[in-house]
Amino acid sequence: MSQKQREAVGNLLRGAPSSPDRSVAEQRAGYEGIFVDRSLGEGVVIRGRTLGGRPAVDIEVAGPRREGKILYLHGGGYVVGSGRTGSHLAAALARRTGIPAVSLDYRLAPENPFPAGVEDGVAAYRELLDSGLRASDIVMAGDSAGGGLAIATMLAARRAGLPLPARAAVFSPFVDLSLAGASIEARAELDPLFTHELLLAYAQHYLAGHDPRDELISPVFADLSGLPPLLIQVGSHEVLLDDAVRLATRAAESEVDVTLEVVAGVPHVFQLYAGRLDEADEALDRAGRFLART
Amino acid sequence: MSQKQREAVGNLLRGAPSSPDRSVAEQRAGYEGIFVDRSLGEGVVIRGRTLGGRPAVDIEVAGPRREGKILYLHGGGYVVGSGRTGSHLAAALARRTGIPAVSLDYRLAPENPFPAGVEDGVAAYRELLDSGLRASDIVMAGDSAGGGLAIATMLAARRAGLPLPARAAVFSPFVDLSLAGASIEARAELDPLFTHELLLAYAQHYLAGHDPRDELISPVFADLSGLPPLLIQVGSHEVLLDDAVRLATRAAESEVDVTLEVVAGVPHVFQLYAGRLDEADEALDRAGRFLART
Repeated sequence: MSQKQREAVGNLLRGAPSSPDRSVAEQRAGYEGIFVDRSLGEGVVIRGRTLGGRPAVDIEVAGPRREGKILYLHGGGYVVGSGRTGSHLAAALARRTGIPAVSLDYRLAPENPFPAGVEDGVAAYRELLDSGLRASDIVMAGDSAGGGLAIATMLAARRAGLPLPARAAVFSPFVDLSLAGASIEARAELDPLFTHELLLAYAQHYLAGHDPRDELISPVFADLSGLPPLLIQVGSHEVLLDDAVRLATRAAESEVDVTLEVVAGVPHVFQLYAGRLDEADEALDRAGRFLART
Repeated sequence: MSQKQREAVGNLLRGAPSSPDRSVAEQRAGYEGIFVDRSLGEGVVIRGRTLGGRPAVDIEVAGPRREGKILYLHGGGYVVGSGRTGSHLAAALARRTGIPAVSLDYRLAPENPFPAGVEDGVAAYRELLDSGLRASDIVMAGDSAGGGLAIATMLAARRAGLPLPARAAVFSPFVDLSLAGASIEARAELDPLFTHELLLAYAQHYLAGHDPRDELISPVFADLSGLPPLLIQVGSHEVLLDDAVRLATRAAESEVDVTLEVVAGVPHVFQLYAGRLDEADEALDRAGRFLART
């Protein structure tokens, strides 16, 4: 089945390409719209809250529950998306681990460029620690820009002297806003979703003149020493393939335990197609086992 | 415990460095000696046989048994080692998967340089197919040079039009005999086992004048299209770290499903220290689950 599933997902995405010509408001509405009809799954309860001074979504799942918290950071190029759009993947991980999740509405560019997102990530993490959770019971996860923000948040937390979370899983992380990855050109024909032009538009909104090689913007240039074990999942049909490969390489060079999983023939954040694409469910299963250390 | 375990293993290796000045016979005896006192583990039965015209060791384990065969290719720089030295890791995988294993005594350099090892690997694989096993029930595994040989054997089998095995797991694969990996210098201080000089001596024996960039010698330069899902495990304290990273990158670029696991602070083929190093047992557990698709 899976070859047909991969093609169906690819065609779906090719049919509705993003465009940098649309206004930010249109892009945000379009992105939210993808998730409107999507079920969170049986037994999932979500509740609005605030965390670190920002809106967030608490996600609880029925069934056996483990101590701790998954801090989830949604994707969307630092420009679109919300705690609600991130709640689907957060719920998928909560269901697989038994760990309750919280999906953060960090501030977005262009209204709030770097370092707003990182500040919100650290404030959220700090509030989880202040609430009595141990760092060793917290894990982080995120997709695309949210994957990059998860790494940047840990780097900023390290700089602030905070104890780091136990593990982090990132899906198709956007971790080089200088767009130096060779796959941005080499995979352009294969990627049904992103182009150099679209990534550049996102990056320019978030950077607002900052150096794209700042380690809190592009963790692929950071010394990652001291970070907890990382799981990086990426599809081979995406221009961000090299971001994932180079993040794994940096982690290895920084003496961080790291697992890189490249899944052939699938697009950016393919985990979103759980239920329709076997690779998505299997990848989420592996991510759940990784985060729960089982 | 594990920090102490990692240090103990590092000290053990630093105490007994290999030397390219020793004769090949001395190196072989020394390498065999490492394994003489090592138990294969409770309930493991090994039997001599021939496979593809070469001596080999059949490995059966007590307990539930699955269909199929693990074809194991031992390490030793294409110069030292034997089916017997490979039988320990082969047994570790057989025990974890329930799949019987066979560890091959492929011909070694300098007496039998490239392509002897690859020819023996393909002949062994072909005999497994001819014996009635389905390719989809065969998996390959190997460590160090044996990891490189496992990849090269699959490339040669592909070229010969044979169906490929279902999966392959390689530990600290030696896949670039041109020694172009940046980690060969960058990790020299951290690696308790290998030096550029020692790797060069191994490579020269095996190459015997062949181009080190031949894809069957250094699969890091190959188009890996069509290969089955790969698991690559490597320690961060080894000069061959970049061989593993670049093999994973090539696999991703070739549309092959690939998982790269970098384990921080452990040396070359750290899986050999199972029972003494938690990371070793855990890595073998993951490799077993990968090969058995569980």
